[in-house]
Amino acid sequence: MQKIYFQDCYPDKLSHCYGCGKNNNEGHQLKSYWHTEQGKISEQAAEQTIAHFMPEPCHTAILGFVYGGIIASLIDCHGTGSAAAMAYRAEGRAMATIPALRFVTAALNVSYLAPTPMGVELELIGTFSEVKAKKVVVEITVSANNVVCAKGTVIAVKMPESMCPT
Amino acid sequence: MQKIYFQDCYPDKLSHCYGCGKNNNEGHQLKSYWHTEQGKISEQAAEQTIAHFMPEPCHTAILGFVYGGIIASLIDCHGTGSAAAMAYRAEGRAMATIPALRFVTAALNVSYLAPTPMGVELELIGTFSEVKAKKVVVEITVSANNVVCAKGTVIAVKMPESMCPT
Repeated sequence: MQKIYFQDCYPDKLSHCYGCGKNNNEGHQLKSYWHTEQGKISEQAAEQTIAHFMPEPCHTAILGFVYGGIIASLIDCHGTGSAAAMAYRAEGRAMATIPALRFVTAALNVSYLAPTPMGVELELIGTFSEVKAKKVVVEITVSANNVVCAKGTVIAVKMPESMCPT
Repeated sequence: MQKIYFQDCYPDKLSHCYGCGKNNNEGHQLKSYWHTEQGKISEQAAEQTIAHFMPEPCHTAILGFVYGGIIASLIDCHGTGSAAAMAYRAEGRAMATIPALRFVTAALNVSYLAPTPMGVELELIGTFSEVKAKKVVVEITVSANNVVCAKGTVIAVKMPESMCPT
């Protein structure tokens, strides 16, 4: 099935995020999508978002373990991307349609539950605990080898007009 | 006054952190130190830690503003560095003495209060809200042009032996 990556639907002028912007060649370029597009169509999965990321060798905390700042960054971008996707869904609109719905992070909380091993692709799963027009709250787990190593909450709010590049 | 950077006192084998490790050439290499070493010796400042960081041009969220994941990363490393420094102080020991005191992040909470402008050196100030032998809690502000753009809390815990490279 063709996956629609949320972040690739952002308008070009809003696609320079270091964590997930398709126009930021030096960034992480995280790609989030609806869990259903991976072929899993349980009722629970239908409301979940997913993303994967392979840390680079330099992304260490202590040797052998992934840096917490990278994990926080992935949670951040998966959260705002998921928020945008849910906002489009709530409006019954396809992503990438105009006017763009873009969210930024008001608050980010991360709990590090276990050291995250290097050399393993990380999986992020997002679920929604609150969905309003201007505020979406996303709960996210980060797993390595099917073990949840970190969990986080992103309080995402609709991007203020003042941040929009002209 | 000669500044003693906390992260430069970590043993070599614990200095590969992407956010602050002196042995990670691709990382941010954040440097934290006691506020008093900047020459400010108010009673309040004596208990504060400080660090500065100039985001790179690629560290954008929306064009013109700093990526929240970088801000979270800086808070993370300033928090664990400050925790280590406070732990040494609490034991009456100079940093870099053996056995090393190294902390990792159990939880990281960040509130983004205002968009953080690019092109400005960021200042992080840390204060301590809890100091125990194995747990230190650090409250951190991130300012640009003397405006607090983000604040965060790092719950730092003493690094478990299992994470220590042999």
